Amino acid sequence: MPAQPMLINGEWRAASADATTFSATNPATGEQLAETYPLASAADIDALLDAGTAAAQALRSATTSQIAAFLTGYADAIDTAADDLAAIAATETGLPVAPRLTGVEIPRTTGQLRQAAAAAQSDEWTNPVVDAANNLRSRLESLGKPVLTIGPNNFPFAFNGIAGGDFAAAVAAGHAIIAKAHPAHPGTSQRLAELAHTAAQAAGLPAAMVQLFYHMAPDVGAKLCGDTRLGAIGFTGSEATGRKIKAAADAVGIPAYLEMSSINPVAFLPGVMQEKATALADEFAGSCLLGVGQFCTNPGLILTVASEATEAFIAQAQQAFTGAASGVMLTPALPQHLETGVKHLTDHGAELLARGQESSEAGARGRPALLRVSGAAFVADPNAFQSEMFGPASLIVVAADAAELLAVAEQLHASLTCSFYTAEDGSDDELYDQLAPVISLKSGRILNDKMPTGVAVSPAMVHGGPFPAGGHPGFTAVGIPASLRRFGALKCYDNVRPSRLPDSLRDK
Amino acid sequence: MPAQPMLINGEWRAASADATTFSATNPATGEQLAETYPLASAADIDALLDAGTAAAQALRSATTSQIAAFLTGYADAIDTAADDLAAIAATETGLPVAPRLTGVEIPRTTGQLRQAAAAAQSDEWTNPVVDAANNLRSRLESLGKPVLTIGPNNFPFAFNGIAGGDFAAAVAAGHAIIAKAHPAHPGTSQRLAELAHTAAQAAGLPAAMVQLFYHMAPDVGAKLCGDTRLGAIGFTGSEATGRKIKAAADAVGIPAYLEMSSINPVAFLPGVMQEKATALADEFAGSCLLGVGQFCTNPGLILTVASEATEAFIAQAQQAFTGAASGVMLTPALPQHLETGVKHLTDHGAELLARGQESSEAGARGRPALLRVSGAAFVADPNAFQSEMFGPASLIVVAADAAELLAVAEQLHASLTCSFYTAEDGSDDELYDQLAPVISLKSGRILNDKMPTGVAVSPAMVHGGPFPAGGHPGFTAVGIPASLRRFGALKCYDNVRPSRLPDSLRDK
Repeated sequence: MPAQPMLINGEWRAASADATTFSATNPATGEQLAETYPLASAADIDALLDAGTAAAQALRSATTSQIAAFLTGYADAIDTAADDLAAIAATETGLPVAPRLTGVEIPRTTGQLRQAAAAAQSDEWTNPVVDAANNLRSRLESLGKPVLTIGPNNFPFAFNGIAGGDFAAAVAAGHAIIAKAHPAHPGTSQRLAELAHTAAQAAGLPAAMVQLFYHMAPDVGAKLCGDTRLGAIGFTGSEATGRKIKAAADAVGIPAYLEMSSINPVAFLPGVMQEKATALADEFAGSCLLGVGQFCTNPGLILTVASEATEAFIAQAQQAFTGAASGVMLTPALPQHLETGVKHLTDHGAELLARGQESSEAGARGRPALLRVSGAAFVADPNAFQSEMFGPASLIVVAADAAELLAVAEQLHASLTCSFYTAEDGSDDELYDQLAPVISLKSGRILNDKMPTGVAVSPAMVHGGPFPAGGHPGFTAVGIPASLRRFGALKCYDNVRPSRLPDSLRDK
Repeated sequence: MPAQPMLINGEWRAASADATTFSATNPATGEQLAETYPLASAADIDALLDAGTAAAQALRSATTSQIAAFLTGYADAIDTAADDLAAIAATETGLPVAPRLTGVEIPRTTGQLRQAAAAAQSDEWTNPVVDAANNLRSRLESLGKPVLTIGPNNFPFAFNGIAGGDFAAAVAAGHAIIAKAHPAHPGTSQRLAELAHTAAQAAGLPAAMVQLFYHMAPDVGAKLCGDTRLGAIGFTGSEATGRKIKAAADAVGIPAYLEMSSINPVAFLPGVMQEKATALADEFAGSCLLGVGQFCTNPGLILTVASEATEAFIAQAQQAFTGAASGVMLTPALPQHLETGVKHLTDHGAELLARGQESSEAGARGRPALLRVSGAAFVADPNAFQSEMFGPASLIVVAADAAELLAVAEQLHASLTCSFYTAEDGSDDELYDQLAPVISLKSGRILNDKMPTGVAVSPAMVHGGPFPAGGHPGFTAVGIPASLRRFGALKCYDNVRPSRLPDSLRDK
C-alpha cells in the first residue's frame, strides 16, 4: 500500500517514492495500523509554504462572511461525520468513542469552530481605535502570511492542528493554515483535512486555505519553523519540542505561541484540610485519574502543610490511587515515560505512596502513581521535583509549616494553572493572601475551590501562562475572541483616504 | 573626579573603584564632557535585579492612584526643571534647546507621562472580561517583575529609558523599572532619574521603583537580558543591538519589545508626480532633512516610476539637498556612519545625486546625501539598497514602469511606516490597490499623502511593525493605552471568591 498523500495546494499529493514513512499504533491493542504516512521532505515544505503564501495573498479579497461560512460549514461536516471520525480517532488514540469523543470532544471542537465563525464576522478581536481628530485609526488584522498549527497527542479534535483551537483562531483572524498532524493520529487528521478542504472550497476560499502534512525530520522542522514565509506558529505539545520550535522561530522574528508542559500546583491549606480532608482527596484523585491523567491541566503537584488531617487526606488519596485501574494511554511510549517520571522522583527521594492496579489486558496502559516528598526536600532540590509526569500521577508535597509552604511556592516553575482550596470559616485567608500572589504570578489561570482539569471555551478563559508553560504571557490558546489576537498584526492608518479604510475604521 | 553614581535600590551608589568608565562628548564642539560614568558590573546588575524583584513584590499592595500620582508628580517635576534639563541635554546631544527640546520634546514627554497616569487609573488597558455564568474572569495585569527599559540616542526625553514611552507604559502597567541610560546622554538621564526617584518616593512607592545604570560590557548585557528576574524588556535602538537583546531574552522566554531600524519607504505614484512634482520634492526634502534626519521614521527610500515629472521631482530634491547645511548630529560617530552608508550605496552602483554644504564649523556634522538607483538594479540586489542611513540621506528608486515598481515592493524589508502619495483625480488608484497591500504588510503604519516623520501620541498610533522593524507585530511602542499591553500578563480568575477578585472583575 502506498503512503497516504499530503494535502498541498488543494491537491492530495503523494510523497516522493523515497520518503521515509511511519504508521500509527492502536494503543489499546498494540497493533500497528495498516496505513503508512510520509515524512514531508524539504521540497514538500517548500511547496506548502509557497502555496500558503499564494493563499494569503488571495485571502486579501476574501470576506469575513466567506471565512465564517467555511468555519460553520466545516463544523457541520464534522458533526455529520462524528461517528466515523470518532471511530478512527478511537483506534488511533485509545480514547473512548463515548462519552469522550462523540459526547465531549467533538461537540467542543465544532462549538469552537462556530464561535470562531462568529468572531470572524465581528470586529471585536481587532480592537478598532479611531482618533478622528488626528485622522489616525488602528486595528489588529491578519498577518498576511500562512500560520503553522501543530497539535498535541491528547486531543485528536479539540486541539488538532487541522480542527482545534489554534486552527479556529488563526482561520477566524483571516489566515491560511499549514497544519501538521500529530503522528499518533494521522488518519483522524487526514479525514478532518478532507472535510476542511471541502468546506473551504465551498466557501470560495483559496486552494491552499488549508494544507496538511503528517510529520518531518527534525532538520526539516527547524527549517520550516524558521521560514519567514510563515506569519506565526501555534503549538501544543512537549516542552522539548516547543523549545526547538521557539528557537527556530525567534531567530527570524516569527511569533510562536506555545502551550507546553505544566504541573498545575494545587494547594490545600490547613483550614480546609481540617474541614474535609477525605472529600478533598476524592476530588483530587478524581481529577488526577480522569482520562488516564492525560490533560495539560492535570494536577501534578499537591501542596499541603503537615497535620493529622493531611495524613487523612493522604490515606484517602492513597486508597483511591491503589484501587485505580491502569488505563490505555494515547501512545505506546507514554506508559514508559510515566515510569521514567516516577523513577526520577523516587531516585531523588520521593516516597512512593501508591500504584494503581496492574493490568494483564492488552495495550499501552499507564499505572497510576502517587508520591510524597517533604517541603524541606522539595526546597533543597526544587528542579528535581517539577518535571511533568504525563499521566495519572501526582506528587504530594507536605510542608512542615506555612513558612515552608511559602518557601516551596517561591521555587515553583510556571504552570498553566494554580488552584487554592481554603476553609469556609476564613481561617486560611491570611495564608492565602501570602501564597496566592507568589504562585499566581507563575500561572495563567488561578482557581479557588476547584480542580484545574476542565478548560471551558469561554471569552474569559486563559489557557497559557509564563514561559515555559506558555510562549508569551500576554495570550491565551483557548477563549474566543482573545485567542484570535495572537494572530493579529497591529496596523495604523494615518491620514488614509476614507474609501481605502477598512469598514470598521471609517467614521460612523 | 570620581565616576557618577548609579541609582540602585533607592540609593545613589558609587561603582566599584576598578569600574571601567566613559564620558559623553558634546557633539557640537567635539569636547569630551567632564563627568565620567561607570559601566555596571555583573554585581551591580545583580543588585539592580534583586532590588527590582523586591520592588515588584512591594508593588502588589500599591494602588493605581499611587502609580498615577508618581507619573504626574514626575511630569510636573520635569516641567519645572525643563530649562535645566534641556541645557544638559543640548550639551550632550547637540539638539537645539528651542524649539526642539523645550518646545516639543519635553512637552511630549510630560504629556506621555500624564496620559500614562490616566491609563493607570483606568482599567481599559487590562481588557477585563467577565463570564459571570461560568464564574470566569480575565484581564491583563502586571508581569510582577521589573521591566528593563533601554532608550535610543535620538530622543533624550521622549524615548529615554527613565522618562520616555516605554518607561511611562511599563510604570502605568504597574512595574518597577530598571533603566539603562543611553551613553550619549548619561547626565540627562541621571538628572531625570533624580526627579523620577523623588516623585516615586513622594507617592509612597518602593525604594527600587526606578533604578538607573549607564552602560555595561556586552557580556554583562547579555546576562542581564537573559535573567528571568526580568519581566520584559523595552528597547529602542540599532538593529544589531536589538538582535543581541532579543537572542538573550528569547532563550529564557522574556518578552522583548524592540523598535529597531527602519527605512520607511515613501511611494510617489505617477499621477501625483504629474500633478505636483516640485511640491512633493520640497515636502520630501523637508521631512528628510528635518532634525538632521535623525528620526526612526525618516524617509530613507523613495519609490517612483520614470517620467519627465519624476525627473523634475529629482531635480528639485537635488537642489534642496545641495543647499542644505550639514547639521550637528547626536554623537561624534554618526557622521562617519552616514558616510559609510552613502559609500555602501555608491559602491553597489547607486548614483550620488547631491551632497549638502560642507561645513567648516566645529562639531559632528552630518552632510545631507541624496542618491538614485534604478528599479532594475534594486531588484537585482535588494539587500544592498536597504540598509538604514541614519541621518539626512535618502535613496530614490526609479522604476522603469509600474510592474518594476511592484517588483521593488515585493523585495522590501519591514519598516515602521510606509507612505503613499497618489493623484487627486484617481489615476493612481489602480496601482495603489496593487502596491499598498504588498508594502503595508511589512509596516506598522500606513500613510496617505503625508510624510512619515511625526509620531503623534494618540491611542490610534502604531509605532512598531514586523520584525526586524519591531520585535512583535501585534504591539506598539507609542500610543496609550495600547503601549501598556506589551507589559501585561493575561490572567484568568476561575471560581475565585468575590472578595479576592480585582475590582474591575467583580460583578457590577
